[in-house]
Amino acid sequence: MRDFTQDHRWLSINTATVRKQQGAEVPLARIIDQCAERGIRAISPWRDQVAAAGLDATARQLRAHGMELSGYCRGGFFPAADAAGLRAALDDNRRAIDEAKTLNAACLVLVVGALPGALDGTPHYTDLARARSEVVDGIAASLEYARQVGMPLAIEPLHPMQAADRACINTLEHALDICDALDPLATGATGDARQAALGVALDVYHVWWDPKLQQQIARAGKERLLAFHVCDWRLPTRDLLSDRGMMGDGVIELKKIRQWVEAAGFAGYSEVEIFSALDWWQRTGEETLDTCIERHRSVV
Amino acid sequence: MRDFTQDHRWLSINTATVRKQQGAEVPLARIIDQCAERGIRAISPWRDQVAAAGLDATARQLRAHGMELSGYCRGGFFPAADAAGLRAALDDNRRAIDEAKTLNAACLVLVVGALPGALDGTPHYTDLARARSEVVDGIAASLEYARQVGMPLAIEPLHPMQAADRACINTLEHALDICDALDPLATGATGDARQAALGVALDVYHVWWDPKLQQQIARAGKERLLAFHVCDWRLPTRDLLSDRGMMGDGVIELKKIRQWVEAAGFAGYSEVEIFSALDWWQRTGEETLDTCIERHRSVV
Repeated sequence: MRDFTQDHRWLSINTATVRKQQGAEVPLARIIDQCAERGIRAISPWRDQVAAAGLDATARQLRAHGMELSGYCRGGFFPAADAAGLRAALDDNRRAIDEAKTLNAACLVLVVGALPGALDGTPHYTDLARARSEVVDGIAASLEYARQVGMPLAIEPLHPMQAADRACINTLEHALDICDALDPLATGATGDARQAALGVALDVYHVWWDPKLQQQIARAGKERLLAFHVCDWRLPTRDLLSDRGMMGDGVIELKKIRQWVEAAGFAGYSEVEIFSALDWWQRTGEETLDTCIERHRSVV
Repeated sequence: MRDFTQDHRWLSINTATVRKQQGAEVPLARIIDQCAERGIRAISPWRDQVAAAGLDATARQLRAHGMELSGYCRGGFFPAADAAGLRAALDDNRRAIDEAKTLNAACLVLVVGALPGALDGTPHYTDLARARSEVVDGIAASLEYARQVGMPLAIEPLHPMQAADRACINTLEHALDICDALDPLATGATGDARQAALGVALDVYHVWWDPKLQQQIARAGKERLLAFHVCDWRLPTRDLLSDRGMMGDGVIELKKIRQWVEAAGFAGYSEVEIFSALDWWQRTGEETLDTCIERHRSVV
């Protein structure tokens, strides 16, 4: 396992972690500067932040800092109420793939979606198998385009508590079953045979509880492990979406899981993604980023 | 599939559903009377409620009403900080088994526990594999006694969002793996070969999201399906423990899951278990029970 204690060269910051600072939204350009000032070599930004900052301006700023993207957040949300909605989702995913390519991201992360309308509290249907079928169809269609462009797609299995409204792919095993079905040869989107065209983004927050985690990480292998996200599970967890903990402040066995991931061949960034409306989003970005660096060295 | 639309003979009420009425704790004897008044033939009470009411008095009241127990809540919470704690948990589970027998319960439901101390926010350790190992050892020891007494034990897989503090068995597949390991012949605790000594309590709230649910229900079969619990998954879910919905008020495909369970041979009660601090526990018991009956007929 790589030694993280001496530096933070393998630390990436998902910009959601510091998108709010002292309770206020912060522009992406400022976040990039804050990361660059600390020698952070990679980020993973969100589409709405990039849109607000300008795609080309963001690409230029990243190049100027020599900064990489460990991923781009996010494509997905495939299920829809009707055929027009399904088409619109595919179009939106093509745009996300193009943006990810412009920013030279390692992968486009897919939060696949679930029951359409559920996020607004009014699901158009409750047939979970239908949502899953629409997800598979949507990934298949997007994958075709992603292969042409050369942008790997990373399915992020989300915690089962988000199965109704955000993602109906909720275990690594299920995500890998879909990868094997749609990309059986795992031969690469970029001509790079070490990386499959379709793989997974493994966020410890979503999968730490899974009794089959170690087994399925080994199954995934380096070809399918396209991204690795860390944070922690707080006790108590006060909200189903925005109460993630800083690494070390919860119960997730971070080193153990990283060991499994690296034993499978993963050698990329350890990306910190913390949604924390009640805690970290209330602090300064400087404090949050400095703590990420410290914890990356001490507990990841 | 059985027709529930004409009557509620297969409705059971988990007494947690009405343990608070208009915000105040209600004695078990009153809950039993309220259920009996409505022709409800079965309940599943909690140990603390039974202790407060008196075990023998409760047994007498149940007999007087001809009321059955679809289950008894609960044994489990096996992992502990030290050897003394592990022994104390086993002793407590023996008492729970005895109580369940006195009350002639269909099974003792096991909420198996997880990281010891986590419920209080201070886990003694975070080694999830250790907790799972202690759970398996605890079930094995309890099973030996339960076989002597003739009381089936039902492992209840809990939702993964409760993996840290309440139960580290979080999928039906994992629960059945443990059943097969500890009770490979499934030959029965009561001399009744139709019911295994060790099986599962399947609560739709905990398992509805699982992509392997149908497959694993079929695997369980009637021998392992010892209890079936219903409620619903609200949008949004505002609390990880106490924001369950009334059947029909959420997104769980209740009829579909009951169809799978009955196809596997389950022919017992459909037990309503709703923890709802924000909604149903604020209403009268009469309104909650009448609604349970109505929804049992219309959406379960």
